Amino acid sequence: MSTALPPAAPAPGAPLLVGFSGGLDSTVLLHWLASNPAIRATGLRALHVHHGLQAGADVWAAHCQQVCDAWDIGLQTVRVQVHNHGQGPEAAARQARRQAFAKTLQPGQWLALAHHQDDQAETFLLRALRGSGSDGLAAMQVFSQLGPHRLWRPLLDQPRSALHAYARQHELRWVDDPSNDSSAFDRNFLRQQVLPLLQQRWPQAAAALALSAQRSGQDSALLLQRDQQLLDQLVAAGSADHLPVTALLTLEQTQRARLLRRWLQQRHAPPLPGHLHQALDAQVLSAGRDRQASIGWSAGWQLRRWRDALYLLPPLPSPAADWQALWDGHQPLPLPDGSHWRLQGAAGFSRPLRVSLRRGGERLRLPGREHHTALKDCLQQLSVPPWQRPWLPLLWDGDELLAVGTLLRAQGFAPPLVVNGATLQQLPDAPVASSTD
Amino acid sequence: MSTALPPAAPAPGAPLLVGFSGGLDSTVLLHWLASNPAIRATGLRALHVHHGLQAGADVWAAHCQQVCDAWDIGLQTVRVQVHNHGQGPEAAARQARRQAFAKTLQPGQWLALAHHQDDQAETFLLRALRGSGSDGLAAMQVFSQLGPHRLWRPLLDQPRSALHAYARQHELRWVDDPSNDSSAFDRNFLRQQVLPLLQQRWPQAAAALALSAQRSGQDSALLLQRDQQLLDQLVAAGSADHLPVTALLTLEQTQRARLLRRWLQQRHAPPLPGHLHQALDAQVLSAGRDRQASIGWSAGWQLRRWRDALYLLPPLPSPAADWQALWDGHQPLPLPDGSHWRLQGAAGFSRPLRVSLRRGGERLRLPGREHHTALKDCLQQLSVPPWQRPWLPLLWDGDELLAVGTLLRAQGFAPPLVVNGATLQQLPDAPVASSTD
Repeated sequence: MSTALPPAAPAPGAPLLVGFSGGLDSTVLLHWLASNPAIRATGLRALHVHHGLQAGADVWAAHCQQVCDAWDIGLQTVRVQVHNHGQGPEAAARQARRQAFAKTLQPGQWLALAHHQDDQAETFLLRALRGSGSDGLAAMQVFSQLGPHRLWRPLLDQPRSALHAYARQHELRWVDDPSNDSSAFDRNFLRQQVLPLLQQRWPQAAAALALSAQRSGQDSALLLQRDQQLLDQLVAAGSADHLPVTALLTLEQTQRARLLRRWLQQRHAPPLPGHLHQALDAQVLSAGRDRQASIGWSAGWQLRRWRDALYLLPPLPSPAADWQALWDGHQPLPLPDGSHWRLQGAAGFSRPLRVSLRRGGERLRLPGREHHTALKDCLQQLSVPPWQRPWLPLLWDGDELLAVGTLLRAQGFAPPLVVNGATLQQLPDAPVASSTD
Repeated sequence: MSTALPPAAPAPGAPLLVGFSGGLDSTVLLHWLASNPAIRATGLRALHVHHGLQAGADVWAAHCQQVCDAWDIGLQTVRVQVHNHGQGPEAAARQARRQAFAKTLQPGQWLALAHHQDDQAETFLLRALRGSGSDGLAAMQVFSQLGPHRLWRPLLDQPRSALHAYARQHELRWVDDPSNDSSAFDRNFLRQQVLPLLQQRWPQAAAALALSAQRSGQDSALLLQRDQQLLDQLVAAGSADHLPVTALLTLEQTQRARLLRRWLQQRHAPPLPGHLHQALDAQVLSAGRDRQASIGWSAGWQLRRWRDALYLLPPLPSPAADWQALWDGHQPLPLPDGSHWRLQGAAGFSRPLRVSLRRGGERLRLPGREHHTALKDCLQQLSVPPWQRPWLPLLWDGDELLAVGTLLRAQGFAPPLVVNGATLQQLPDAPVASSTD
């Protein structure tokens, strides 16, 4: 009925930290790895996550210490407290464990976890019951990453029965996690009720579902590769904070949605809810070029169309329009958007100058021009997106506008300014066509 | 609890043929479609598949006739006999139904079927229990093809409860297919036992699984598109019957396997079993350029490497090496590979000539050459794959070789030949470099 594990665990050639709960699965994994001298030679340690408040937690920790002492394996026990922030008890415990792993892992050390084929089948079903596509149905991988660390699941292709057979064969002792016996958790409901029912009719159900997960994982990897290829092309055509709309619209809707999801992820934005992908297509991307359209989600994030570009904007309050400051140039000046204006190549101004934000109607005399030009026209021509304009600091000498952010300077005003670490040796000369003069 | 159907069925603008079993689902579909005057106007007919040998089949057929008479819908009843060729009773019945549909559909007519969200969830689980990736997990599509015909499943997003509510609201009568009440079939096992169990804990299980199917379908469509793109590039670089190995090897293993699956499908070859994809990679594609390597599957199909190309060969017996014929050119000559040699532009030869297959050691005098050249060298230089060589017909005048297939002719032999419908106005002059002379 049950297949035993291959006699020798493969040696990854890196020091290993094994997640060790004291239950059947991780006891088998630890024993199996420890019986390979090559693995012991490159370094094998165990980590027990001690769930402080759970009944019996001390007993498990003591058991783990005994086992590791007997097998001559260094054990580190990390106490965690599970904070349930509404994501469910299982997810909260998982997050606490992952934080403990991440905190303990040394550079170059791999984390080895004892997930097996039956776990994989359960994860596949859980993802399907959440309506996932292949990215989610991929479930767990034999090799993956935990932050900067490699995560290895060498038993992922082994059925639980093989682990049981191995434990019997080597007369291993383990503790049973009482949460495994409760149907309170989704995963346990699948393990105790759904999979046994499926196995009545399909004895290989777990292996089949795990194969579906593996194939979905292969599909997902190909799709992610393609997404990244297309995204790189678009970012090359646009910039990191916006994508060209015309090019986005040449993609199929589902490809566009995947690509946007990846873009948001890489820009550390929260995921866009499914229905907003449709709204984005209908109301934002297909809007006329002259229209500013946007959608917002998750406490202030925005995707905003302007001209032929789709911009991603993090949550940003409106600036106080009446903000102003006096600045002598000797110290960096904190600006309302959190950046600083710095004067470089000069100790300071000869007298304090006033800094304000736009109120409308400002004009400035560009270098080489006879007359003053409307600031609005300059910004338009410089393609400054409208939502960035209220944040531009304006430097005044009385009623004369001297400089606008690091974009514009007036005739006769030359001291180099540094904003946000971008060193400008000199503010640019008028980049605005004289037709607006 | 249950959502009713949208009041009006969407009109596809094409005449419809509705698959009508007399059960709840198709009764609801037919009534719903029939209540839209636009659909009646473009044409609405029903098809009942009469499973001749099943108990009660006559009663259902009579019921369907009654319903269609009452609703003024033309009904066609097609008798089928289900032949179970080892694919299982459900698959056999499905195949018989599809053949009946295909036979009945008129050009331009769409087939409408009553599959709903719960069917979709079941199909998704069945595919997962077979270990499918996203192509299989895609399950059914709202729009697809049945041969040259459009297949439409307008109820695929509707839960069964909505169909029930609709039937109650319109006081519809239907017959229950007794096979629905038997756990003998996989699908019924899922319907009666697995899904109700899942719904105890996840009330939206069917909708979630159907959403997974839909997302898998979107992923599958993107992957298929990409596969075809890559395949078109490879075929452009190679030819329809072989692909360039170097280019194949630049692809990732999973992408290569997908692309080969698609290529075989389009060449009407049976699918390559999973483990042979690995064998192909290890033993055929990575074989040295000078080696001929191949794998065979499914009664004689072969993938064979020769030089930098991977060839797909249908099952082909070895030719009888001692085959020969006398040919006067007046009638087409049947050749051992099933094709025919035809003489064109001349009534016949002045006397019957002998035709044989290769035995080795043949030489011929190419146009413009003083001496005879070994046929083997000619074929090598013409890049004729070794397995095609034994099938080449050779035309002899006594001991003098006059022509080789449509590839080569001897000095002084000019009558145009046609083989396999490929009209050659004239056999080519010696395409073999004189260094082999």
